[in-house]
Amino acid sequence: MKTVHKKHKYLQIAEKIEELINDETLKIGEKLPSIRTVSTEQGISMGTAFQAYYNLEAKGLIETRPKSGYYVRLNNVRFPSLPKAHPLEPIVNEGSVQEMIDAVFKHLGTKDLINFSIGSPSMTLLPVAKLTKSIVHAFRSSPHNCIAYEDIQGNPELRKQIAKLSFNWGGRTKPDDVVVTSGCMKALVMCLKAVTNIGDVVAIESPTFFGIFQLIQSLGLKTIEITTDPFEGIDLKYLEKTIKKFKVKACVFVTNFNNPLGSCMPDNKKKELVEVLAKYQLPLIEDDIYGELYYGKQRPKTCKSYDTEGLVLYCSSFSKSLAPGYRVGWCIPGKFTDKVKQLKQIHTVASTTITQVAIAHFLQIGRFEYHLRSLRKSLHTQCFRYTQAILAYFPKDIKVSRPKGGFVLWIELHVNVNSFDLCQRAIRQGISIAPGRIFSADEKYRNYLRIAIAGLMIRT
Amino acid sequence: MKTVHKKHKYLQIAEKIEELINDETLKIGEKLPSIRTVSTEQGISMGTAFQAYYNLEAKGLIETRPKSGYYVRLNNVRFPSLPKAHPLEPIVNEGSVQEMIDAVFKHLGTKDLINFSIGSPSMTLLPVAKLTKSIVHAFRSSPHNCIAYEDIQGNPELRKQIAKLSFNWGGRTKPDDVVVTSGCMKALVMCLKAVTNIGDVVAIESPTFFGIFQLIQSLGLKTIEITTDPFEGIDLKYLEKTIKKFKVKACVFVTNFNNPLGSCMPDNKKKELVEVLAKYQLPLIEDDIYGELYYGKQRPKTCKSYDTEGLVLYCSSFSKSLAPGYRVGWCIPGKFTDKVKQLKQIHTVASTTITQVAIAHFLQIGRFEYHLRSLRKSLHTQCFRYTQAILAYFPKDIKVSRPKGGFVLWIELHVNVNSFDLCQRAIRQGISIAPGRIFSADEKYRNYLRIAIAGLMIRT
Repeated sequence: MKTVHKKHKYLQIAEKIEELINDETLKIGEKLPSIRTVSTEQGISMGTAFQAYYNLEAKGLIETRPKSGYYVRLNNVRFPSLPKAHPLEPIVNEGSVQEMIDAVFKHLGTKDLINFSIGSPSMTLLPVAKLTKSIVHAFRSSPHNCIAYEDIQGNPELRKQIAKLSFNWGGRTKPDDVVVTSGCMKALVMCLKAVTNIGDVVAIESPTFFGIFQLIQSLGLKTIEITTDPFEGIDLKYLEKTIKKFKVKACVFVTNFNNPLGSCMPDNKKKELVEVLAKYQLPLIEDDIYGELYYGKQRPKTCKSYDTEGLVLYCSSFSKSLAPGYRVGWCIPGKFTDKVKQLKQIHTVASTTITQVAIAHFLQIGRFEYHLRSLRKSLHTQCFRYTQAILAYFPKDIKVSRPKGGFVLWIELHVNVNSFDLCQRAIRQGISIAPGRIFSADEKYRNYLRIAIAGLMIRT
Repeated sequence: MKTVHKKHKYLQIAEKIEELINDETLKIGEKLPSIRTVSTEQGISMGTAFQAYYNLEAKGLIETRPKSGYYVRLNNVRFPSLPKAHPLEPIVNEGSVQEMIDAVFKHLGTKDLINFSIGSPSMTLLPVAKLTKSIVHAFRSSPHNCIAYEDIQGNPELRKQIAKLSFNWGGRTKPDDVVVTSGCMKALVMCLKAVTNIGDVVAIESPTFFGIFQLIQSLGLKTIEITTDPFEGIDLKYLEKTIKKFKVKACVFVTNFNNPLGSCMPDNKKKELVEVLAKYQLPLIEDDIYGELYYGKQRPKTCKSYDTEGLVLYCSSFSKSLAPGYRVGWCIPGKFTDKVKQLKQIHTVASTTITQVAIAHFLQIGRFEYHLRSLRKSLHTQCFRYTQAILAYFPKDIKVSRPKGGFVLWIELHVNVNSFDLCQRAIRQGISIAPGRIFSADEKYRNYLRIAIAGLMIRT
């Protein structure tokens, strides 16, 4: 029985709000009144109002978003469980995954498609006009209007800006450590070629983005999947066991907001991972393409942050955060830099000049940081709205990931549902979603689904 | 003994001019007076003047250049012999070629370098301002100012324009047959990956551009060199013998104005080559990057022109003719198109949007054809001026190629000269040239040299 008179005022307020959340008067993702408003409306001090919110935050019911305020985080009653991480068994690759991928993505160009499978942000989230100003600046300020070949390693000012950007995740990067590439996939290609030979085994997360899977295969390499937890990222013990058992030659991990899981490896675990890899002198290709798209207060670190031996080949790009069509990515390949530079010269010569110069300018004048702040907020809001819509319209027995960044949700459906069938039925209704089966060589994810939350905006 | 009175007037005039050429009063590459001027000055009819020039042209002493007039072609007395094509012996690859390439090209960024080794045209030869207008048009006319991903296969209007362009060499290309790539090297990578497996043998010309050699090696493939004649291109008999003897899985040939030889395979020989390859069902990757840069009246055809079975994978780009820094190339992979499209999706996703849209516009409004006409003229003139300078300043015993297009000269020095040593001595004087040794796994070209004629303009 509640004994109200004994309770602190702030707890009374907190309980009231908790009830509103539980009965869905306050919905997930909804903004709460400011501390000042609560204080005025409830006739309490600002301090008490703050304590009430602090209590709810500690319970995980609400959360602050930088420079925005307090939001309802989750609903104890209705929030679904997390999708399961499957223990892995020996891989059976049927070779039909490619057909599924083709079946899903051949419709991407269709007009009026309701597209929940595209891996890039809506154009409404990108600074189209401001980037165009940087393009104009680029050809006005550069010799020969950017028609000439760019520096093979990458535009020097852009490399400087990328080095500065790495400071945010604790990188000690110099412009000469950076190699600019035509997108992140190209960075992965160069890094993989630098550290492997044909036939080598490469460890990847499970599930993992099918593009990485296809890429590794197309380079004549073999993949081995490592169990990956939705919260903790890859299973280090399983990894070490696998390194010992198979002749693993390199790892490719998306440590921050992995696609499709949305998992973000805690920073101390990243440090542990780097130590394990150093023990076996195993290179890690770290794909950090979503690293800047965090919903929380702080950018998560990277494995590269803890790398003292140059074994981590860091890869990223501006395709998910700024301009997909510019095709500007980069890598910081540690002790493999010379090899990567040489490969780039052979395979690409230089990357496109004008887009490099434009992005360098965009970063130099501080517009990228400014843009990221608003992009992160929008993605966070979208993530909530999508989750809420899924709770409202999907069956009750589903499980949904709770990513802390990036722009995909990973959904576990009832075990009897074949999500590829579901996708094909959806496409006939003009809706595109990605079936879980394409994210692993293992069949375990046949009742899973990936929903991209940044292509189509949900407005309230 | 000359019996002048019996000779036709036109022959008298022709002989006079021949003497002027032989004693170098009229220098190689120099423009002759117009037919009208000769007619007026010599007091002869226009018809007689024309006959005189026609006689000299038949002798190979002068030549017409479209819309420009008559020029001194060669000097019987002083014009050097052609470099030798070496019969090949089993290849010994020392692995030191890479070091030579690095030694030559690490200096490319040096300020004030007199650069005779760069493989791209001088910016003064390119339509910088007009292309910029197409860039402005591109972001003004496209949705989202070209920030979004482009069609994976390539911008549709650009593919249409490329299909139209192929009409000039007798191509029957539809926009859907074209795959746009980030430069020609990327087109070669995709095509090689589409038709070979790791460890396969690929036939290339000898000598061949070292970039092609490095690329094939870096894909885990083996190369076998085919004897190539400076005039006739590759030796078909030697090729057929090699196909039979080794398990050749594909060929990569530059059929028009090959680098460094400058050879242009006669069109009927291209047809024969296609027939030989059809007999063995062997795919040919045809690199036609210099095809548009002909000095003569007509664009040479391509092997693709004669390909009825879809075995020819045609590759080219705008890097040598329009905008190196835009990184826009393409391929027309025949029956391997689906495979190439899939590989492109995996390795590159899409290519840069804005440069594709800009070049599509540039072609659409007819500016490319217009620009090519003046570029061809300039290159032809440069080729003559470089040849003349080489004759004036190099030892008498050298041999020089006589390319009919493209922008390199291939020079055979005295057999005792080690051209790599020469290059290193040249670089200390601030001059960059490319040693013959890097164009073959064979050591036969150690006394050869490649001079690029389009990077630095010789003015008279």
